[in-house]
Amino acid sequence: MLNEQWLINANPRGRALSSEDFKRTQTETAALAEGQVLVRVDLLSFDPSQKGQMENIGYAAATEQGQVMRATGIGEVIESTDDKMPVGTQVLGSLGWQQYAVMNASAVEIVPDDGLQSAYLGPLGGTGLTAYFGLFRVGCPVPGDTVLVSGAAGATGSVVGQLAKLSGARVVGIAGGPQKCDWLVHELGFDAAIDYKNESVKAAIRAACPGGVNVFFDNVGGSILNDALACIALNARIVICGGISRYEQAVLPAGPANYFNLVFQRASMSGFLVTDYAAEFAAAKSRLAQWIKNGDLVFKEDVQSGFDQIPATLKRVFDGDNFGKQLLRM
Amino acid sequence: MLNEQWLINANPRGRALSSEDFKRTQTETAALAEGQVLVRVDLLSFDPSQKGQMENIGYAAATEQGQVMRATGIGEVIESTDDKMPVGTQVLGSLGWQQYAVMNASAVEIVPDDGLQSAYLGPLGGTGLTAYFGLFRVGCPVPGDTVLVSGAAGATGSVVGQLAKLSGARVVGIAGGPQKCDWLVHELGFDAAIDYKNESVKAAIRAACPGGVNVFFDNVGGSILNDALACIALNARIVICGGISRYEQAVLPAGPANYFNLVFQRASMSGFLVTDYAAEFAAAKSRLAQWIKNGDLVFKEDVQSGFDQIPATLKRVFDGDNFGKQLLRM
Repeated sequence: MLNEQWLINANPRGRALSSEDFKRTQTETAALAEGQVLVRVDLLSFDPSQKGQMENIGYAAATEQGQVMRATGIGEVIESTDDKMPVGTQVLGSLGWQQYAVMNASAVEIVPDDGLQSAYLGPLGGTGLTAYFGLFRVGCPVPGDTVLVSGAAGATGSVVGQLAKLSGARVVGIAGGPQKCDWLVHELGFDAAIDYKNESVKAAIRAACPGGVNVFFDNVGGSILNDALACIALNARIVICGGISRYEQAVLPAGPANYFNLVFQRASMSGFLVTDYAAEFAAAKSRLAQWIKNGDLVFKEDVQSGFDQIPATLKRVFDGDNFGKQLLRM
Repeated sequence: MLNEQWLINANPRGRALSSEDFKRTQTETAALAEGQVLVRVDLLSFDPSQKGQMENIGYAAATEQGQVMRATGIGEVIESTDDKMPVGTQVLGSLGWQQYAVMNASAVEIVPDDGLQSAYLGPLGGTGLTAYFGLFRVGCPVPGDTVLVSGAAGATGSVVGQLAKLSGARVVGIAGGPQKCDWLVHELGFDAAIDYKNESVKAAIRAACPGGVNVFFDNVGGSILNDALACIALNARIVICGGISRYEQAVLPAGPANYFNLVFQRASMSGFLVTDYAAEFAAAKSRLAQWIKNGDLVFKEDVQSGFDQIPATLKRVFDGDNFGKQLLRM
């Protein structure tokens, strides 16, 4: 079957993404071997770590130029040599930026027929699991703690804040613009929100966290991390999840000058990768799904559309244009 | 009794120490109240954190201009109104930069008559305890780990390296100059030493730690911390103990640009203050004393002399002129 694809055409290190970083091509899908499925890609997920993967700067799986751009997606099985995944099955996996994907059946999972379909790319997918394990295993909030989240209106940050509320913590989010801040406070139940585009972040953290920050979950890095370090409480835990402010810089930006506050506050700053918790994904997903059904966990999606728009949609994530989990429907 | 003293005359923030930061004065010692001792100060201890205390930048106890410069020392009781500390008793406490100190008996401790006297200001004092708790409680080396120590020939770093050897770890030290490096390898049993004054630190760490750094104990900060972060192994623990490279800078220097390696290596960077472990000091001291008696823990002292030389002796610590624990005999 004729298959349109977007290939990786560059390793965009130290600069913003450009349209030249991807190359559009056409190919014929291969015939299925035993135990494979042909999937029609319907919905793609976008995430800042995709650029990091293209750069080969340390994430687990390296990428190569000429390879189909890697991406998680959901699609429908339209041809199958595997009994457990007949035609019509909805599956999720690393389908890539293409119209059709030939996949080993063992490399995809069946999407439950529970009405939460697209959530398996967001709060029940990589970003939700990242929030769950980063917060509960590294941040370890306890009732009464103040949890500060950067990138709070993003796919990961918005889940972090809501999970922290379930822990009994006070939650403050940092996001860009009044619309996102309103959403955090009025729809997600954050106790306060800081608009980094219109406020002095350090002063606003001090005002919103008078007892200091017990847990800081960082998706941004740069000056926001440095400002948060200035406001940590004794024994604070700083969870380094992402550093989107760094991802498009030519020269590695300076680290946080206030790191030495870790000493005065006997605090720690830790990184993690969600893949290390794979053995526990099923249990975490079942809790997250329950919270979504309860209404304890609310999420928003920003759904673009059309195969042509795929590269531009990844760029939205870096420009902060998305409001909610970035998806694209083919 | 006529008492010569050095008073704090400035808060030397953001610059090197100067002779103007201290003011010499004379006063009469006060008459003893009940339960007090008059101590003739014989031996003073010097430590980088003394400058931090003068600056009032976050250490526990604030200082004021006009106050006698705070310092730990050992002296002899020459007058006493406390039965448990008769004249002639050797005591240790926060005696300060002065010839005589009037102390509450409860604020000093008796120095055991075990031949280790000056060691109670070094490996059995604040620096030894800092090494012990920072390494064993925060760094947590296990046999087979590679432990990297900066400021390795200093009072804290030299103990850290030797304790790490007792843990079954491989130990690499970073120090300034061939003489200190030789001492680490040939006298203290370090597996390798890196001379930061004459080698490319990052390349040397990579060569000396081919499997990566499992524990980095940092006394220095700055580019050495950044280089170490580039070389950490999976699940590395970075212990932030000191940052002597920062203590005399006018502008807070940049933090470690490589901090994001904490994510890729699922590593952590933690600060601590030794005072938090006070309840366990006695137990730790008794182990450290045993290791000194065994010959497992070797130490070196740099003993200056004379009341006049006190301010200049603190400066030696910042200029890296001391080789071994910095002391001064009055």
